[in-house]
Order: sequence, then structure tokens, then C-alpha cells
Amino acid sequence: MSANNAVRVTVWNEYRHEKTNATVAGIYPNGIHGAIAAFLEKSGAIARTATLDEPEHGLTEQVLADTDVLTWWGHAAHSEVSDEIVDRVQKRVLEGMGLIVLHSGHFSKIFRKMMGTTCALRWREAHERERVWLVDPTHPIAAGVDPHFTIEHSEMYGEHFDIPAPDELVFVSWYEGGEVFRGGCCFKRGLGRIFYFSPGHEVYPIYHHPQVQQIITNAVQWASFRGNPAVKPFYNAMVAPLETIAPKDYQSEKIQHPGR
Amino acid sequence: MSANNAVRVTVWNEYRHEKTNATVAGIYPNGIHGAIAAFLEKSGAIARTATLDEPEHGLTEQVLADTDVLTWWGHAAHSEVSDEIVDRVQKRVLEGMGLIVLHSGHFSKIFRKMMGTTCALRWREAHERERVWLVDPTHPIAAGVDPHFTIEHSEMYGEHFDIPAPDELVFVSWYEGGEVFRGGCCFKRGLGRIFYFSPGHEVYPIYHHPQVQQIITNAVQWASFRGNPAVKPFYNAMVAPLETIAPKDYQSEKIQHPGR
Amino acid sequence: MSANNAVRVTVWNEYRHEKTNATVAGIYPNGIHGAIAAFLEKSGAIARTATLDEPEHGLTEQVLADTDVLTWWGHAAHSEVSDEIVDRVQKRVLEGMGLIVLHSGHFSKIFRKMMGTTCALRWREAHERERVWLVDPTHPIAAGVDPHFTIEHSEMYGEHFDIPAPDELVFVSWYEGGEVFRGGCCFKRGLGRIFYFSPGHEVYPIYHHPQVQQIITNAVQWASFRGNPAVKPFYNAMVAPLETIAPKDYQSEKIQHPGR
Amino acid sequence: MSANNAVRVTVWNEYRHEKTNATVAGIYPNGIHGAIAAFLEKSGAIARTATLDEPEHGLTEQVLADTDVLTWWGHAAHSEVSDEIVDRVQKRVLEGMGLIVLHSGHFSKIFRKMMGTTCALRWREAHERERVWLVDPTHPIAAGVDPHFTIEHSEMYGEHFDIPAPDELVFVSWYEGGEVFRGGCCFKRGLGRIFYFSPGHEVYPIYHHPQVQQIITNAVQWASFRGNPAVKPFYNAMVAPLETIAPKDYQSEKIQHPGR
Repeated sequence: MSANNAVRVTVWNEYRHEKTNATVAGIYPNGIHGAIAAFLEKSGAIARTATLDEPEHGLTEQVLADTDVLTWWGHAAHSEVSDEIVDRVQKRVLEGMGLIVLHSGHFSKIFRKMMGTTCALRWREAHERERVWLVDPTHPIAAGVDPHFTIEHSEMYGEHFDIPAPDELVFVSWYEGGEVFRGGCCFKRGLGRIFYFSPGHEVYPIYHHPQVQQIITNAVQWASFRGNPAVKPFYNAMVAPLETIAPKDYQSEKIQHPGR
Repeated sequence: MSANNAVRVTVWNEYRHEKTNATVAGIYPNGIHGAIAAFLEKSGAIARTATLDEPEHGLTEQVLADTDVLTWWGHAAHSEVSDEIVDRVQKRVLEGMGLIVLHSGHFSKIFRKMMGTTCALRWREAHERERVWLVDPTHPIAAGVDPHFTIEHSEMYGEHFDIPAPDELVFVSWYEGGEVFRGGCCFKRGLGRIFYFSPGHEVYPIYHHPQVQQIITNAVQWASFRGNPAVKPFYNAMVAPLETIAPKDYQSEKIQHPGR
Repeated sequence: MSANNAVRVTVWNEYRHEKTNATVAGIYPNGIHGAIAAFLEKSGAIARTATLDEPEHGLTEQVLADTDVLTWWGHAAHSEVSDEIVDRVQKRVLEGMGLIVLHSGHFSKIFRKMMGTTCALRWREAHERERVWLVDPTHPIAAGVDPHFTIEHSEMYGEHFDIPAPDELVFVSWYEGGEVFRGGCCFKRGLGRIFYFSPGHEVYPIYHHPQVQQIITNAVQWASFRGNPAVKPFYNAMVAPLETIAPKDYQSEKIQHPGR
Repeated sequence: MSANNAVRVTVWNEYRHEKTNATVAGIYPNGIHGAIAAFLEKSGAIARTATLDEPEHGLTEQVLADTDVLTWWGHAAHSEVSDEIVDRVQKRVLEGMGLIVLHSGHFSKIFRKMMGTTCALRWREAHERERVWLVDPTHPIAAGVDPHFTIEHSEMYGEHFDIPAPDELVFVSWYEGGEVFRGGCCFKRGLGRIFYFSPGHEVYPIYHHPQVQQIITNAVQWASFRGNPAVKPFYNAMVAPLETIAPKDYQSEKIQHPGR
């Protein structure tokens, strides 16, 4: 966190559709990242942005070291994200950085790496209505959110969604065309917290929706909690016993533990 | 499954310590894999073995296609397992093959890839007593297992164990030297089931312990359940709506969905 | 289980609507219990029935002792179920009997007692379409079930459903009128297993639907697994230590432990 | 919360042992409740106390209405707590009040009612060493807590602990005599949050232990989060559809929904 406890967010965006598609550019003149950063700043966070085509995708070691929460939007160019940067982000999440994965980010390298599954789903782009239902009202990400709200035009994301069962399921979406989707899911990994949130197709003004902004703002706050850094599970060397162990006549032949 | 519903298990072993360490060779004259395959065969499974130094580590496409459950023991040579084979195993697990990860396999490439975390832990080799406690008596892996049992000499594996919270926690270990460990953990990933079980250090005759054999036998049976193959979450193409969608004046500019 | 391993099911029904409502009587001439028992018998289970207006609601100590799985359908007369019988059923579930709670049984005394919450929900009777989606394809209750199926006319049950987060979420329903519902939920309590399944309004022929029958049949099989009876957590008396405890100079003044 | 956002805690205590047992009185001259209230006040909470022998056990409607979090310590007199007050507390928890259940409170009426299980466990009073291990370092209750800490003299509470699988497992205890225990468990019920924490036997100065104080202080903060009050799951009347439902030729005979 920063000196005044404001959360330091880095808003990452693929930032391609905005340059090539007039509809997207019209909705997000400053890019999707610009829109997200703007409402997060209003909530009191310190937001910077980073995009695919910057050197190191804008995610240098220093940027990540100064980031409490990273939000991720990508779609058509997942494969252009370098594996080295993905490993760097994963390491930081396991050390306690929050990660908010948005919409088509479900297929990003970083999300699939953190989940261990395909993260595949059903989908359809048909300009249809989505309704987001709150199923865990005790969750901080649900604070101030309506029990249900409507996104008039949305891309459908439907089950089965191939993820591990989330540690906490917060939102489930309904679609006009007949599907449901576990669209708001929390995961804890290492010392970090991850939230996946499905709304956010680029050709609709979804990140201008007040309820969507509330949820992402809440999620950033929630994910900024860094796990207890005193817990250092990885040891290259044997630990001493805490209790006295009964004397034994045994001597194991030494075998080096390989670490990882 | 085979024609007669016997589970087809492939017992994978690094198979190095048995060749270089007299203690290990004395305990497991046919290798750790030989010992595990033997008690699984007695339980009615069809067991074959595979080891690191075989071509493709013994895990060809054909072997995996004919495997319902794969058990994995590795320790000093995790890094020698080829990434290609690891990817192949992961793909099969997500398609429904069971995976039983044993002891130092916590640091195997395949387990860390499925979990998305470091899978690090505390450890100590001090010939100490371990006591395994059953904390989920409703679980099939616990069938016929004592509420607690003792392993007289064991390697200590202690918390914090850096894994995702397991879908089901079945066993927790107590150690003479003062630690505890979530040593029996179930995970569901894709259409597959994964069980991690911590006892099994190579210099102790742990796989000869009747309770350990019972647990691994149960786990193989549990993990052999293949998820519903009708669920095919990954679509390269848009799905049609199931319900009639209200006519709309909108035409999205076509954007190709990249798949993965 | 019976001698031949067939599951012994007791199908409980309030059995009032069938006597007073011609629509319900037309759909279920032998009662809802008769219809459920019939398809369970076909699957190989040994099914008996019990209804509210029988002595002890048909749930004597002996009946419950001979029951592996109890299914529960009630609606308008929850308050007429005696507290003594509810306590008896709860005790048996905690000892390992399975419990399948159907539809409006969400508001039964037994379900609310097992959950500890209100089990309240949104509802509407509008003859609308429901579509059931499978979200956990690794679950035995999902075996042979389609990824989604349609119930043409159903009562809507919607979120928020006030239950503890289920141990496993297997099905989520979509409704024509705009809601979603976690309608297939697994819970483990004591040595017993509980499955709640929402479809089943009395004025529609829902228990004649092949997919619904498949799910309830699977659920009965799943819930018939009795937890490990060697685990007896309750002790009226102190247990002896398993390890030698270091001698200490302390003598606690004896305080009686009250048990429960 | 109070005007200045301080959490309003009511510290409930059976308050019997302190009056009859010199050891307990020596350790807790102001009662266990006095000791707990004192360190919570230091952390910035507004703490009041309530005890069994006060009218309505000190838990009037007004007191509960003014309480964000209730902590509960009871042991020998669980049966003397009136069912009416237990129902009142349960209702408030489901409406969003936090509940911290301490030590022998595992057998309190309120905890067993919220859990739906026996909440039984193994136990032994032998002046033995307990070591508390942190297994979920991402949890707010773990903030500032050591990866493990020691309670020199403790009552043993051991598995199997007959509770529902906790929504989050934060601490696991090790005991000198050979047992383990899931001693720090989070549950969400209705709009409320519940934390069970096992250390706290009355004849040891456990609530003077700085780490124990840190955990209970964190837990009070965590449990003070009240779920989203806009979510009102219980409806006595049918809700209108949100979407247009296709016209149908059906008229259901009206059946009154009984509510609860």
C-alpha cells in the first residue's frame, strides 16, 4: 500500500480493439484501461495503466513491486503475452499481489496458469440481456451491490466454465438466450487473492455501468489484502524440530532435497 | 475402465533412489512402483508401472489413453521430467484421468502445474513419529481407515503447505517434532480428480503399512470416477441461443474469438 | 444396505395436495411418493414410502434404522411435522443416513435444522420454463446427465437462497422470468450426506422427467455412502494421551465436563 | 457500527467457574468476559459484557440490536441457556451480527444450532502443550499472527470435530499428547459471519496470551462485516417476473405458500 493506505492498482489492457474497431474506440476513447483506471481513481485508489505493446508489456519488475492489485483485460492477443512476464506476474500473486481477471481474460495465460485448468466456457455474441445475481451477500465484493442488476447488451458466457470450484462464489449470471454462468468467483493462491468477473465485452459500455464499477472497486479493495508475509513455506534446508524428539538408533543416508 | 470394471492404474516412479541407496533398495527390492502396484493388484485393480528413465518416461499417448488413474512418486529428479510429458498428463487429467500424487511428488512439475502454486512446505528428516488423523469420515477415501494411525518413522512435512484450499480435506498429520500437515487433500480439476497424500518417504517402509495401502487403494477407486464426458466446455465457435432472443437493431463488428 | 447391496430408500411425502387438488392427483395418482418410489425401484433400490398422516409420520425408529437414504417432499404442512420426529431424523443423518431434500422441502423443519439458516428463497408460480445446468461434471450425481436440460413448466425458485455455501454445487437453474438458482447442492453433516434438488412442483409432472429421475437416482446412490463408523467424536470421558506427556507439577482442580 | 466506526462487541460469559474455582478466579479476577473485553477495548472496539445469570442472560433485544459482534464462552451450564435467547441470537446472526465462539462454546446451544451437527470432539485435561499453526495466511484473522505459536498448558481438543467443513480453515492445533484439531474455523450463515476458536480453557491464562488476543481481535473485526442488507431472500408473496414470460394457456389452481 502507499503511504496513505491507498491501494496501488495497475490496470492492464491488451489495448488492440480500441485501435482497430470504431465501436470500441467510441465507447472507450481512452481505452478500456483508461475507463477502469478512471473510476478506480475516483474511489481513492492510485491507478496506473500498462498495455501489451509497451516494453515488457508495461509490467517491469519495478512496476509489479509497486503494485498491490493488478487488473487484467485481454482478448485477441493472449498468445502474444510473453511467458516470462506471465511467470513474473504469477510469482507476485503468490507473494501477495491481488489479481482481478476481467471478461475474456478467462483465457489469458496468467489466469489459466493460476487455475491449472482450461478455463474454457460457452460463448455467444448476440447483443442479449444479462442479469447478474448476487449469491453470497456476506462477501465484501458485494457491498453496496443490488441483489440483481441488468446489463442490457452483453456477450453470453455460459457453463460449463472449466475452473476449479471457486473458494467463494459471489455472482451468477442469467442470459436471455438461456444460459447461466458463475461469473463472479474468488480464489486464494499463495499469499494472493484472485477475483474473476465475467461482464466486460468490448463492444458494449459495460465498464461504464455503475454496478459493475462498484463490484470492481470492491474487488480491488478485497484483493489488496496481502497475506501474512511471516509465512514462508519454502525451505531449502531442513527445519529443526520444535519439540524434543525421542533418541533413536537410526542414521538415514543423506539424500539432498532438490528444492524446486 | 477395463471390460470387467477393474480400474487400470499406471504407477509412475522416479526410480532412482532404489538404484543408488541400499536402504531404499532393501525396503523396496522391486522399486516403490513395484510395491504400490502389488497391493493395488491385490485390491482388484489392473496395475502397470512406468518410470522416469523409460522412453517418454513410460507415459506414451497410448499408455495414458489406457490409464484410468495415474499415481506419481518423484523426488530428486523432478526437473528431468519433460515439459511435453507433463502437458500430456495435465491434458489427460482435465479429460478425466485420476491422479494420485504421493509424498515428495508435491514438488513435481505436474502437481505444481495443476495447483498453480509453489506447493512448498516445511520438512525435516529426523526419523520421527507421524500420526495420521481422519478429519472427514464421510469421504470414500476414509472407508475402513482407523480414526488415527501411527507411522513410527517418517519424514516430517509441515505447514504452511502452499496449495489452494483443497476441495475436501481428509487427513491431517501430527508429528513428534511439533508440526501439523494437511496431508490428505482432494482436488477436482476439469473432468479429473486429484488426491495428494503425504506419507511415503523412501527410506521408511511406509508403502508396506496396511492403513497407507488402504488409503491409496481407496483413493485409486475414488479417482477412477471420470467426469461426465458430455460436458465439453471448450467451443471454437459461437453457440446458438436456446431461447428466442428479442429482435435488436444491433450488428456487432465481427471479432474473431481466439480460442486458446 | 441390504444383503444384496441394494440401497434401502424411504420416500417420504406430505401427501396432502394429491388428495385435494385434481391437477396433482391427475399427475401423481399414486402420490408423489409413489412416483419417486417407482423409478427408484426400477434403478435397483429397495424403496418404501412414508407419509405425514401415518403414525409417527411413518418414520418410526425401526423404519429409520432400516433406511439408508430418506427422500423428503413437503410443502403446505411443514409445521405439522413433529419436532420429535425431526430430531430423530437429524440424529440418523448425523449417524450416516443419506437425506435427499426435494423442492419445497427447502422449508421443511429437517432441512432448516440441518442447515442452521432460514433456507428462504424467491419464488413464483407462473408456468414458466426452467433450464437446469450442470456446473460440476466430476460429481457422481451428474453421471449420465445432459449438460443442460429443460423443464417446460416449472415453479421459479430464485436467489438469494439462504443456505450455507454448499460443499459441492452441482446444478444451477435458469428461469424464463429472469432468475437463477443454486438448485443442486451437496452437504456433508456428521457421517451423513445431504442433497438438495429444487425441481419438483406438484402441479407439473416433473418427477416423470427422465433427467430428473436420473439425478434423484444418482443422488440416492451417492447419499447411501455411510461415513466411517469408527469415527466416534463424542466422548463423555477424557481420552488418554497417545504420546508420553512431559511430567508437570500441575494439578488442575477437577471440573466436570458436561457432555451435551 | 458506532458513529466512529468502532465495532460494538458484546462479550458473553457463563461466568460460573470464576465464582467457584480459585484457580480460575486467580487468572481472571474480572471474569473471562472482563479479560476479553479489556483487550478488545484496547484494540479500539466498544466492548460491553453479558453473563448467564443476568436477566435474559444479558442479551435483551436491545442489547443484540446494538451489537455488531457477540463473543461466546460457556462450559458447564450450556443447558441453562434459554432456548428463546438462543433463537434470538440465531436470528441476529442470520441478519448480519458476527459470532465468535470460544473454546468449550463448541457445545453451546447456539453453536450447535448454527452448525446443525453435534459439534462433539475428543478432549483431555492434562496440562499439556498446544501449538497453533496457521494454515491460511491470506485470511484477515491471520494478520500479524506468527506462523505458529505455543500455549504451554492447554486442554486438548482433538479430531474428529463434528462440524460442517468450514468455509475457511485458518488454524490447526498440535498437541503434546498426539492429537490435531481444526481449531480456527470460519463459517458464513445468512448475512452473518461465525468464527470458532478452540484455545481458552478456564484454568490456564490463555486469554492473556498476546497471539490469542491478536487472533480474537482480528476475528471481531472480520466478523463485524455485515452482509448486504439489500438481499432479503424471504418472501411471503410471489415475485413478479423480471422478463416477459411467453403467454401460456395454463391456470394453476391456487395453492398457498406456507412461508415458515
